[in-house]
Amino acid sequence: MGTNVKQQAYTVVKNGTIVTPRGFAAGGLHCGLKKTSRNDIGAIRCEVPATAAAVYTTNVFQAAPLKVTRESLSNGRLQAVVVNSGNANACTGQQGEKDAYAMRSAAARELGVAEEDVAVASTGVIGELLKMDAVHSGISALPASLGQDANEAEQFSQAILTTDLVKKEACVSVVVNGKTVTIAGAAKGSGMIHPNMATMLAFMTSDAVIGAEALQRLLRQATNHTFNMITVDGDTSTNDMLVAMSSGLAGNEELTVEHPDWEAFAAGFTYVCEVLAKAIARDGEGATKLVEVHVTGGVSDESAQAIAKTVIGSSLVKSAMFGADANWGRIIAAVGRAGQPVNPDTVDIRLGDISVLAQSRPVAFDEEAALAYLQTDTVRIVVDLHHGEGTATAWGCDLTYDYVRINAAYRT
Amino acid sequence: MGTNVKQQAYTVVKNGTIVTPRGFAAGGLHCGLKKTSRNDIGAIRCEVPATAAAVYTTNVFQAAPLKVTRESLSNGRLQAVVVNSGNANACTGQQGEKDAYAMRSAAARELGVAEEDVAVASTGVIGELLKMDAVHSGISALPASLGQDANEAEQFSQAILTTDLVKKEACVSVVVNGKTVTIAGAAKGSGMIHPNMATMLAFMTSDAVIGAEALQRLLRQATNHTFNMITVDGDTSTNDMLVAMSSGLAGNEELTVEHPDWEAFAAGFTYVCEVLAKAIARDGEGATKLVEVHVTGGVSDESAQAIAKTVIGSSLVKSAMFGADANWGRIIAAVGRAGQPVNPDTVDIRLGDISVLAQSRPVAFDEEAALAYLQTDTVRIVVDLHHGEGTATAWGCDLTYDYVRINAAYRT
Repeated sequence: MGTNVKQQAYTVVKNGTIVTPRGFAAGGLHCGLKKTSRNDIGAIRCEVPATAAAVYTTNVFQAAPLKVTRESLSNGRLQAVVVNSGNANACTGQQGEKDAYAMRSAAARELGVAEEDVAVASTGVIGELLKMDAVHSGISALPASLGQDANEAEQFSQAILTTDLVKKEACVSVVVNGKTVTIAGAAKGSGMIHPNMATMLAFMTSDAVIGAEALQRLLRQATNHTFNMITVDGDTSTNDMLVAMSSGLAGNEELTVEHPDWEAFAAGFTYVCEVLAKAIARDGEGATKLVEVHVTGGVSDESAQAIAKTVIGSSLVKSAMFGADANWGRIIAAVGRAGQPVNPDTVDIRLGDISVLAQSRPVAFDEEAALAYLQTDTVRIVVDLHHGEGTATAWGCDLTYDYVRINAAYRT
Repeated sequence: MGTNVKQQAYTVVKNGTIVTPRGFAAGGLHCGLKKTSRNDIGAIRCEVPATAAAVYTTNVFQAAPLKVTRESLSNGRLQAVVVNSGNANACTGQQGEKDAYAMRSAAARELGVAEEDVAVASTGVIGELLKMDAVHSGISALPASLGQDANEAEQFSQAILTTDLVKKEACVSVVVNGKTVTIAGAAKGSGMIHPNMATMLAFMTSDAVIGAEALQRLLRQATNHTFNMITVDGDTSTNDMLVAMSSGLAGNEELTVEHPDWEAFAAGFTYVCEVLAKAIARDGEGATKLVEVHVTGGVSDESAQAIAKTVIGSSLVKSAMFGADANWGRIIAAVGRAGQPVNPDTVDIRLGDISVLAQSRPVAFDEEAALAYLQTDTVRIVVDLHHGEGTATAWGCDLTYDYVRINAAYRT
């Protein structure tokens, strides 16, 4: 999926945002949760109750907002999302839960929607209670900040960032039985976890007519090939959450897996996920480049996924990519410890188009050309196992001095 | 095991080496495989055929010497080990296998032992053929270098090092039905893998009378609690090997698991493994300190092991330890993603004696005291899950600028 889908199935909407799909307004502002004057609270509101789906962190320690959002989503419907940055409301016990419920009811009241149609998300410091005064004053000011222009979407995108250096957005359109359907998303995250500041959050909007179950299935499937295939440091936040809402205002025939345009819609949806996921990997803490690992010839797609993730997660591979060092020994060693079926005599490795290992034996290659390629800002490592039909792609970033610097004294 | 065994079961032999147990001679010299003048070939020889056991890397890509050593060990007996550093003889195909066999037969001839009683080990650059001229001249000179003094053991210990900063040795004695039995070991390794230079190798000697099966079982059990509980960067070499030889010259009644002194012998054996394993972790590439993670209250020892290894392997935890940052959020997040049964409401975390989390809620602690503790050269993280009786200890090191520097341009 993702890189393999036909580009013509969907059209990239340049400068599209989460308010491009029909029915959505968004906004954000500063209420006092971050020490700087950057935005720290935001909301998305739909004109109508939207079909909704979500995926959550697999971490055993789940922050309070996840509990509240799961409860709201139990009917497959949402009309608004409220999200704060600066405080994760995690490891905050019963008071934390009360505060997450209070955020939900305040947002419902101010945005004029039903309480059970509001999702809550938080990202930031762990183990501290939310300053509810700031949260309440922020939520009171939210309705006036909401709008359907790019500027207002920008304010929302800024409100969800923590250590991120850039905002992450994507938008495509797809034709579904003659109607134009739009899908968009905004995300944040620059490490898989930063337990004091951060998390991965993503919000997707669409105007397609689609059932909640179909949306949930598609979301999970697209996540498995995109957000679940990135790693910055192998850690997993207590607050990760991806929420998708579809307003149905495009007026298409309801999308199901049997619909003739399902594949096009799924491709566009997955593309948005992939753009956001890659943007998170590229913006990894301290990263200087995006690293893509493409594995082919595995015994299955799942096996190829496990190998791709082991290679992209290897600290030695990541350090070598930082140093633009064509060190294939680290790549093959990671392949060999992934716990997957591999024929030790049939592995090819390429860095971009440069072959460095063929049939598990070293290839004499042009070191200068390899150095020049590895110094670019996007590096592709291709591993062909010649052992089956399974393929997978994973994304990550290099391991740099700045990663260590950022994380050596995060709380101070 | 390890830290939990009664100290009085065995006696630490200060300045003991692999030639302290009766029957062993060792030596090492420079033959031209390393670019510097440091020793790069060495051997251990036993007066008599010794009971022997080994464990090997789980990596799919196994270097040629491992194949040869497995073959030699099929009869549970060894009389000599020959080991070179500077070249791993890995990813070298059929010629690599021929060279490993040639190393074995040359060593057998020069040391006057049977070919099938010689183990071969290599560590160093991957994907390059061994310079066999240098290897042969080195092996020819080995007999004259062998001896039973500390100096000759030192020459061996130096011969197996690559990026290691210090040599790693340990020795204990145990009384077995009135006879003094001695157990010793020497190891190398400063990353779990450095595919161009390095690997973890360990060689243990003993003079106990013990059967090959009992020795193999003990070696595997001790390894699971020591060498398999360390991580520097989560990577696994193609060349890892741990070989144990026992000469039987102590003249004790044969040790079996039913022997009344078995527990004492096993404790001493495990202690030697633990000292070597911790020395490898402390000497991790770029490390400034040893980090020990002790988990109690898991549903089983295996579950506690998985959690301890996830915490010690977390780049975020390792970075925080480098920065002496009492960042318990990173520790609990790693606990939560280990895929093990955990009650999210009952976890305690201590840094040394300083409680930072109790029943999964933050504890107000003295930041200055925590900083002072985390700046020492040995840091202990204690996680009590209050969820069962399982315990485990894992060791690792901090993630530093120097780790990135060393690994960003390893080949150059």
